[in-house]
Amino acid sequence: MLLERIHHVAYAVEDIDAALPELTERYGMRVGIRERMEDQGVEAVALDVGTDRLELIQPIDPEGSVARFLERRGPGLHHVGYAVGDLDAALEELRSAGAELIDERPRRGLGGHLIAFVHPHSAGGVLTELVQSERPGRHGD
Amino acid sequence: MLLERIHHVAYAVEDIDAALPELTERYGMRVGIRERMEDQGVEAVALDVGTDRLELIQPIDPEGSVARFLERRGPGLHHVGYAVGDLDAALEELRSAGAELIDERPRRGLGGHLIAFVHPHSAGGVLTELVQSERPGRHGD
Repeated sequence: MLLERIHHVAYAVEDIDAALPELTERYGMRVGIRERMEDQGVEAVALDVGTDRLELIQPIDPEGSVARFLERRGPGLHHVGYAVGDLDAALEELRSAGAELIDERPRRGLGGHLIAFVHPHSAGGVLTELVQSERPGRHGD
Repeated sequence: MLLERIHHVAYAVEDIDAALPELTERYGMRVGIRERMEDQGVEAVALDVGTDRLELIQPIDPEGSVARFLERRGPGLHHVGYAVGDLDAALEELRSAGAELIDERPRRGLGGHLIAFVHPHSAGGVLTELVQSERPGRHGD
């Protein structure tokens, strides 16, 4: 399976609105799409860094995995998203290789992208999101 | 200060050679430059993901910050590197704004790039590396 590029890095924060000013005013990031994703138990906002992207995620479900992450570790790097051309094929390839998938099939992520998470045990120790690149060769929205 | 793009994400690992096969064979990353950086207490290797980059860092100094990170948290996401056009100017701007810098002046990072670290307290909760982009507008080596 070939990862095409880094799609985004995600920072877990207690409060998106409290975290935004530093990143926008001090570092020049530009605020993009913002959504509540009930199935992931988070609110998320995309921040553009040139043509790259950072995502801030804030728990909205106190029992969800991001809330637990914050309790255990405090705010910080949560996961990395990588773009793949064909997410179904990538998941099938990982499954066949015995990788531990968190999502057995694609679901919708921020901005409607098809995404799936892979367990850190099967991805270099890091929670890894695969994002289907609807427009290969360039950065998605 | 304007961040131009994500320069790299860095994963802390116990053993680069043990971590490499999964990332290269399963995910298709390509091995790039590898160096021991005594002043940072790490050995590091760059992995190309398309035109993006992941870095694996392994402690070589048992008292160093990466060794302590692994003891405290285990393997995982360690920092994010962002490209800036003028690192001296970026550090001066951050200093004036009261940001907490780890490196008061630029030093050499992987591949000879000029780099400086900013404390997570002053960068959205995430250990942040600024990398001078010697060739603005494209990815450095």
